[in-house]
Amino acid sequence: MFSPVCDGASNSGCESSKESSRSSTPVLDTDRTDRLRDKMRRRTESGDHWFSLEFFPPRTASGAVNLISRYVAEALACSSNSALSFELENYHLFDRMGSGGPLFIDVTWHPAGDPGSDKETSSMMIASTAVNYCGLESILHLTCCNQTKEKITGYLSKAKRLGLKNIMALRGDPMGADWEEEEAGFNYATDLVKHIRCEFDDYFDICVAGYPTGHPEAESYDEDLRHLKEKVDAGADFIITQLFFRADTFLKFVRDCRAIGITCPILPGIFPIQGYQSLRQLVKLSKLEVPEEIMQVIEPIKDNDAAIRNYGIEQAVGMCRVLLESGEVPGLHFYTLNREVATMEVLRQLGLWIEDPRRTLPWAVSAHPKRKVEDVRPIFWASRPKSYIYRTQDWDDFPNGRWGNSSSPAFGELNDYYLFYLKSKSSKDALLKMWGEELTSEQSVYEVFTSYITAQPNVAGHKVMCLPWNDDPLAPETNLLKDELDKVNRRGVLTINSQPSINGKPSSDPIVGWGPPGGYVFQKAYLEFFTSSENVTALLKVLKKYEPRVNYHIVNVHGQNTTNAHDMQPNAVTWGIFPGREIVQPTVVDPVSFLYWKDEAFALWIEQWAKLYEDESPSRMIIKYIHDNYFLVNLVDNDFPLDNCLWQVIDDMFELLDNPPEEQPAEQTAEQPNDEQSDKEQPGK
Amino acid sequence: MFSPVCDGASNSGCESSKESSRSSTPVLDTDRTDRLRDKMRRRTESGDHWFSLEFFPPRTASGAVNLISRYVAEALACSSNSALSFELENYHLFDRMGSGGPLFIDVTWHPAGDPGSDKETSSMMIASTAVNYCGLESILHLTCCNQTKEKITGYLSKAKRLGLKNIMALRGDPMGADWEEEEAGFNYATDLVKHIRCEFDDYFDICVAGYPTGHPEAESYDEDLRHLKEKVDAGADFIITQLFFRADTFLKFVRDCRAIGITCPILPGIFPIQGYQSLRQLVKLSKLEVPEEIMQVIEPIKDNDAAIRNYGIEQAVGMCRVLLESGEVPGLHFYTLNREVATMEVLRQLGLWIEDPRRTLPWAVSAHPKRKVEDVRPIFWASRPKSYIYRTQDWDDFPNGRWGNSSSPAFGELNDYYLFYLKSKSSKDALLKMWGEELTSEQSVYEVFTSYITAQPNVAGHKVMCLPWNDDPLAPETNLLKDELDKVNRRGVLTINSQPSINGKPSSDPIVGWGPPGGYVFQKAYLEFFTSSENVTALLKVLKKYEPRVNYHIVNVHGQNTTNAHDMQPNAVTWGIFPGREIVQPTVVDPVSFLYWKDEAFALWIEQWAKLYEDESPSRMIIKYIHDNYFLVNLVDNDFPLDNCLWQVIDDMFELLDNPPEEQPAEQTAEQPNDEQSDKEQPGK
Repeated sequence: MFSPVCDGASNSGCESSKESSRSSTPVLDTDRTDRLRDKMRRRTESGDHWFSLEFFPPRTASGAVNLISRYVAEALACSSNSALSFELENYHLFDRMGSGGPLFIDVTWHPAGDPGSDKETSSMMIASTAVNYCGLESILHLTCCNQTKEKITGYLSKAKRLGLKNIMALRGDPMGADWEEEEAGFNYATDLVKHIRCEFDDYFDICVAGYPTGHPEAESYDEDLRHLKEKVDAGADFIITQLFFRADTFLKFVRDCRAIGITCPILPGIFPIQGYQSLRQLVKLSKLEVPEEIMQVIEPIKDNDAAIRNYGIEQAVGMCRVLLESGEVPGLHFYTLNREVATMEVLRQLGLWIEDPRRTLPWAVSAHPKRKVEDVRPIFWASRPKSYIYRTQDWDDFPNGRWGNSSSPAFGELNDYYLFYLKSKSSKDALLKMWGEELTSEQSVYEVFTSYITAQPNVAGHKVMCLPWNDDPLAPETNLLKDELDKVNRRGVLTINSQPSINGKPSSDPIVGWGPPGGYVFQKAYLEFFTSSENVTALLKVLKKYEPRVNYHIVNVHGQNTTNAHDMQPNAVTWGIFPGREIVQPTVVDPVSFLYWKDEAFALWIEQWAKLYEDESPSRMIIKYIHDNYFLVNLVDNDFPLDNCLWQVIDDMFELLDNPPEEQPAEQTAEQPNDEQSDKEQPGK
Repeated sequence: MFSPVCDGASNSGCESSKESSRSSTPVLDTDRTDRLRDKMRRRTESGDHWFSLEFFPPRTASGAVNLISRYVAEALACSSNSALSFELENYHLFDRMGSGGPLFIDVTWHPAGDPGSDKETSSMMIASTAVNYCGLESILHLTCCNQTKEKITGYLSKAKRLGLKNIMALRGDPMGADWEEEEAGFNYATDLVKHIRCEFDDYFDICVAGYPTGHPEAESYDEDLRHLKEKVDAGADFIITQLFFRADTFLKFVRDCRAIGITCPILPGIFPIQGYQSLRQLVKLSKLEVPEEIMQVIEPIKDNDAAIRNYGIEQAVGMCRVLLESGEVPGLHFYTLNREVATMEVLRQLGLWIEDPRRTLPWAVSAHPKRKVEDVRPIFWASRPKSYIYRTQDWDDFPNGRWGNSSSPAFGELNDYYLFYLKSKSSKDALLKMWGEELTSEQSVYEVFTSYITAQPNVAGHKVMCLPWNDDPLAPETNLLKDELDKVNRRGVLTINSQPSINGKPSSDPIVGWGPPGGYVFQKAYLEFFTSSENVTALLKVLKKYEPRVNYHIVNVHGQNTTNAHDMQPNAVTWGIFPGREIVQPTVVDPVSFLYWKDEAFALWIEQWAKLYEDESPSRMIIKYIHDNYFLVNLVDNDFPLDNCLWQVIDDMFELLDNPPEEQPAEQTAEQPNDEQSDKEQPGK
């Protein structure tokens, strides 16, 4: 059959078709625009099994940092401090487990732990960070027992404000033994579901808990099923069950639910047994009975953690296989206990763990609904995406399609270096080991940069895993430039950001690819670095030879700014061409944003590096000198089909410094770039 | 010196710098955003001499069509009708002379000819067409003598509404000999200048006339200079002078103007002598004296038009050289008398006539201020840009950067085929010669298309210079595809629009280049054609092999629509990458707009072709049959770096038609595409 998009000759019919089918963004990833329940429905319909992961909020601030941050483990692995290595397994769970492709994560709610506060360990903050900074679709748990309606509405309003879209509505455990039902209060999760729908209409997707063996406090299994039906009827969108140990338990439960008219998705809660103690504690809390056949295996090996974990994985994998093959289970929900090893292994064995190197955009997309159309960012924050998200969190519109269309150019201040998702993930001790206990000259700073680039240990034998401008070790893409970067950093061209030119590689390329399949990605070569004013003076002379091929912006901490991009338009440096799409250009060099980035980039010298040392110490003075006197430079090679010329530019600069022309002896190259650099040098038009 | 874009460390300073320097469009052509006086100032400052051209409105409607239309001359040259060839020289002046790069054109005002009306020959309509449809910066003359203020305000409001931005403010000749000054009326051009500034503030750029030998009615040369000073003081932006015959006359006039404090640009009015009679007439009207040295040359050759014209060119070139070398003359204004030969030759000899093959965008940009940010259009109207401009004239916003951002998707109806800038520029007689006095079968229609494509005469010996969907002969770019187009049109794939794939040619490429220098342009291959439903049935089978590489849209006159672009997003098919710019993607295949275009494309069969023949005649029935039964197809090959596969698609379709598979004999290929073409065929994601 023909599919009439506009069946009829009149134009008016077409207009309505456009209204409904048209988005103002090319929508590279349809998941970004949908609600969780829509994503679930689509994956269920296509038979594409998914998984989801449950986490609890950490108890300490450093635990929070670790939950959300990547690569800290590696940094610490290089540290000689064995005390710090202790918690390795718990680190960077969100980023690490997020990379396997969960449909969502959920964060539990602990009434005693001030869960709705702004503390970095609160449930609210952890869930918000997962959504906004880690780009994970998230469900926030919420318990209503012993809470006023005002308090609950306050939590929900805050969650909405923070970009959270999904709530797991729970009763929670009553505080104290003498709890009684309150007339107008929240006595059951059903009351909370009704309250959410009443106060927030259809804004939230709501999940409720199911008990495959009946709630321990319910009068009977059937009575509990009726309660579940009430929760669904009140407006819940799907069900996640309590853990269980036999597939049959769950499958019978699903049949019983369907029999009384519960039609929404029911997701099994999977708990891979990870140790004897944790199993006992959990069973006690949840009032569950561990089946005899499991206890018989575990008891004899109860002191052998590895053996129990292996058994747990095997048991979970077997049970999950039965569930998935039953046809009743569209996705699996995992109780991770904030530990990744067992769950990842189960998922790998099930073939559900898919570390897809393909990216929707070259940068990680935020899951905040306000940012769903966002598809352009300045390149400057490429290594500090969380800082970018933080500084733009108050924007009402995000650039979509073109940076030039952005109506919200004002970046928030970044004075909040103390915020847990912004501050360095390494301890002062670790940073000093990496960046030098004592600096003796600018040259010792150059060596830190060189160690970072080459991944070779520094003079004290420590690997440099991060820099103030780069939280993570060098990206695979940057590795393509390693030799060149090594050479120039040794000579005081302190690189903090770069990308090679790319002339139409497939969008599926494992290193530089992004976006849907069948497309082609492109880049202009980019290089950003700090360097001395002497170098800048030589560089500006050299750059005249590269007009109009190379665009440059050169600025110092005081805002003295030289550029040959006089119309201050953004320069697209990453773009992609895809089947049936408008062009996507996710990364730009924006001259205006560069001046905001400049403030941040210079401040990092002081905030993250100089402050490691005592006031007035020589080390601190050296960093301070660089901060006060160096320039921040960015270069773009516009001729992306040709070989990158930016290294030649730097080579030419060194050549000029090494062999100054006779008529202008080296002494005359002033500390400040001289008058010859007039602002009339414009690229040929 | 450093040029501080933002001199200071605070962010607030940057914000204001952004406000002032940032545009929401990449601004490929800075001229588009400026006022005429700004363009003049910039070119004067850079020492870049310009020229401008004066035209008068034609007396007849066909004259109006010819003034604004291209290539009619060639079409007529092929016609055997010698009477039609008579006016050849006057044809298509705007497009032809516009291609040489005038800074502006101006259109004179003839009070007796209903100059402000909606007639196609009115000054107002001609100037509006020049701006809106030909993309020419234009000045509308306006005379005030014997006019009420209300009438004048009405003209000015209308001019503003139509997108006109510049007025030549003139007194005009009093009607009748007994004219007297009116107390509160318009007695001098000064009154009109004041009125414009009073009623329209700074909206219009205003030009006034200067008289190098004094106005014939002025008491004295000095008195006339004082009047000129009054006009400038009242708000005029620049001066164009009456014609003169000696460079000294003009240069003295400029000195005298400067001496009394006139500082604005003064442009010399150049009149290349083109014939004895026209010279005499002009001199009589303007009450000028022709210098003795010129009369001495002309009188002996007064019956030799060619000789006089040659002399006129030589004389004008010599005078212009003196003027330009004086340093007092930034640009030259030409009185063309609606004839192009002499003026073009003068300009060529001066080196001012620059037929720049480079285009700002792949399509001609409109000069209407409302459209100044417009930089995306659907490909469908590529050969009918004036129809596109007409149908989108009521839009408040024009797509900028991306078609997907357009907030004004509704196309106006195109029932106004009678409008002079929309209707066919050829006579019914010429069209019948080209498209067939009598059609005998669909095959005879195929032959018309083939003749057009190959530029070979049709069976009756006439060249086919246009088709209802293509006003002009094949574009040079389409010529690249000629052999393939020839082959498929012979077999009833009636192509009306196509472009080859381009993978990064320099923006300066003479055939496919556009945009500023130093860039790279790209295209996806595109093919649009009418074809029978039998062919479409085979085509849809074939297209399955080309998923997701080829996007298609197939629709008939009733709106039956089949596509594999189910999300209805626009597909960018032309884009450019330029130094220091965001990406420009000026042409898209937009599924929604295609359904509006479909109405127009099918209507052209009837309006322009079928109606050439008598009601019920076989010829008319054949066109009507095609209109009722054929499909309009567009195909995009998304793999622009590979060889265009669209010809292979068509070849495969012919192959399938020629050799239908055994299990499905040819008889079974239904007239309507069959049920197998379900709307679930989506390109792989």
